Amino acid sequence: MDVFKTKAYGATNSIFNGLSEMEIERHAPKADEVHIDILYCGVCHSDLHQVKNDWHNTIYPCVPGHEIIGRVIEVGSSVSKFQVGDVVGVGCMIDSCGTCPACQEQEENYCEGPVSWTATYNGYMKPQNKDFNTFGGYSTNIVVKESFVLRIPEALDIKAAAPILCAGITTYSPLKYWQVGPGQSVAVVGLGGLGHMAVQLARALGATVTAITTTKEKQAAAEKLGAHEVLLSTDADAMKAHELKFDFILITIPDAFDVNEYVKLAKRNGVITTVGLIGPYKAPLNNQEVAMHRRSVSGSIIGSIAETQEVLEFCAQHQILPEVEMINIQDINKAYDKMQDEEVRFRYVIDMESLKQEA
Amino acid sequence: MDVFKTKAYGATNSIFNGLSEMEIERHAPKADEVHIDILYCGVCHSDLHQVKNDWHNTIYPCVPGHEIIGRVIEVGSSVSKFQVGDVVGVGCMIDSCGTCPACQEQEENYCEGPVSWTATYNGYMKPQNKDFNTFGGYSTNIVVKESFVLRIPEALDIKAAAPILCAGITTYSPLKYWQVGPGQSVAVVGLGGLGHMAVQLARALGATVTAITTTKEKQAAAEKLGAHEVLLSTDADAMKAHELKFDFILITIPDAFDVNEYVKLAKRNGVITTVGLIGPYKAPLNNQEVAMHRRSVSGSIIGSIAETQEVLEFCAQHQILPEVEMINIQDINKAYDKMQDEEVRFRYVIDMESLKQEA
Repeated sequence: MDVFKTKAYGATNSIFNGLSEMEIERHAPKADEVHIDILYCGVCHSDLHQVKNDWHNTIYPCVPGHEIIGRVIEVGSSVSKFQVGDVVGVGCMIDSCGTCPACQEQEENYCEGPVSWTATYNGYMKPQNKDFNTFGGYSTNIVVKESFVLRIPEALDIKAAAPILCAGITTYSPLKYWQVGPGQSVAVVGLGGLGHMAVQLARALGATVTAITTTKEKQAAAEKLGAHEVLLSTDADAMKAHELKFDFILITIPDAFDVNEYVKLAKRNGVITTVGLIGPYKAPLNNQEVAMHRRSVSGSIIGSIAETQEVLEFCAQHQILPEVEMINIQDINKAYDKMQDEEVRFRYVIDMESLKQEA
Repeated sequence: MDVFKTKAYGATNSIFNGLSEMEIERHAPKADEVHIDILYCGVCHSDLHQVKNDWHNTIYPCVPGHEIIGRVIEVGSSVSKFQVGDVVGVGCMIDSCGTCPACQEQEENYCEGPVSWTATYNGYMKPQNKDFNTFGGYSTNIVVKESFVLRIPEALDIKAAAPILCAGITTYSPLKYWQVGPGQSVAVVGLGGLGHMAVQLARALGATVTAITTTKEKQAAAEKLGAHEVLLSTDADAMKAHELKFDFILITIPDAFDVNEYVKLAKRNGVITTVGLIGPYKAPLNNQEVAMHRRSVSGSIIGSIAETQEVLEFCAQHQILPEVEMINIQDINKAYDKMQDEEVRFRYVIDMESLKQEA
């Protein structure tokens, strides 16, 4: 297979000393693949988890980045959806088995194949072949199968759109699946990259939206994003007053936490969905609180390719955009520190020009 | 208020030495109440939890029993649903607030009033007035508001029907709520009083039913009840082979257990509902397993009065009956021991004649 070299930023081992510049190999586009010149790449909290090996499945070197906006510079011989010059996006997945029930029903994000879907970086979720890896969007170029490439609507600002490809779809998909809409009361817990998209999307879907945060300073921002109400999770009285209030609670907290305090906020038949946490909650779920009001505790992972295209169109139509702060790739380690300290408002996006222009 | 005395069996304190005979006071029927001569009373695993104060809310003396079959011997002046001589049933609830959203929608079992619904015994679920208590069916007589009294269809054997009023409705309600029916694959975990009803009900609803048990000896019984397949939860290979296999998993285990091993058995979008456990699970729920296939972990508590009437009719129509072993009230402590040791197949029912005939 023809290969070519591109510049990238990645981690070389799990003793995490920050990302550094490296050279990686990509293969030339096959018949059904698209070669993309990366313009912008969002910085997701998962990137930090993955490079630090928090999920114990990182393959090194690890080049993160799964909120990719770029321009098509080459197409394989059978590509029909895209042509050179198109502005496109790549999200968290670049492939799936294609044959399992989930893939057959266009829910590739729930692929039940032997290795699940193929992640845009860190390859397989369930590694079988440790020699195989995929490298993400912290690089100048990427080659992706056209069926996993998204069309970016013209109405979207391409400088800000990247986080829709993960933060946007990850929150849009459960809002749609659990049929959030007018007349419903929705809580969004955690006001980071995911939460700030969820507030905007739930609002645009017609729901009454309460943002729940630990950070009093985020109140004004939450209201500006469309929250009808902001609730501090540290205020026990306010939390108590909101018991049995929400039809749907979307939790975007990325680390282990006690879900029981949020279960109580759900109405009878209400649903609590956690999208940020890949791993166990902090404490056992109390079935008394769940059963006494027939609540459900569920989870959701990103969204399908069709839904990702849909959320891009939805954002274009409703003029919803991530709030982003543009950084150069050379500032990525500082950005990680700030993300960990919850100082980012709300998403960093890397201007990949900064990597191309380096000597 | 006019009171009268009746014989009963109950526990006098939490240092549990078994139940003993006692005399309790009942009030004479008010205008909307029905006075019932108790013929049979089922023995539920909750009775044991409650008398032992496992839920830390028991008020003593505690007279258990919430699977009551009896005959109307007196009706209040405004009672219209029943007349003297009718064979009737009383389940887990004898009242609710009547005004909350749940009660307004005829889901009294999810009453959101200040004290939730009033339990047939041990009065209020959330005690406000510690001087108040209710006494259950381990007694000769009970007086209940007509709107919480069930009509027992003629086609049901009244000697066996009592457990439908708790074990039956507790499993029927979630099967209906989550729309279990033909074409669906259902697992019933735990093959005790609740589980043996769930297998019959799920089968009659048209589902393909797998019974999951720790007890190899229950295999033949499970098949006789209608299970298409029996799976031993202690067989790791068999459990592994059943991952992603069930649309709906109904768990009837009455004590803390690790729900994660059952989560894995659910299909994409599958629901796991626990009905037996009032309290926390044994280990934190792993959101990775939940989210990766958009599963939901939920719970359910008994069922509404309307649903209870419905399950009684459903059982009559499909000739579904609990498998019961009739005991005298004097043998209740032995029965509790056997229930705790999982030796009962599948439900004890007390012939209340044994209490009436005592000197």
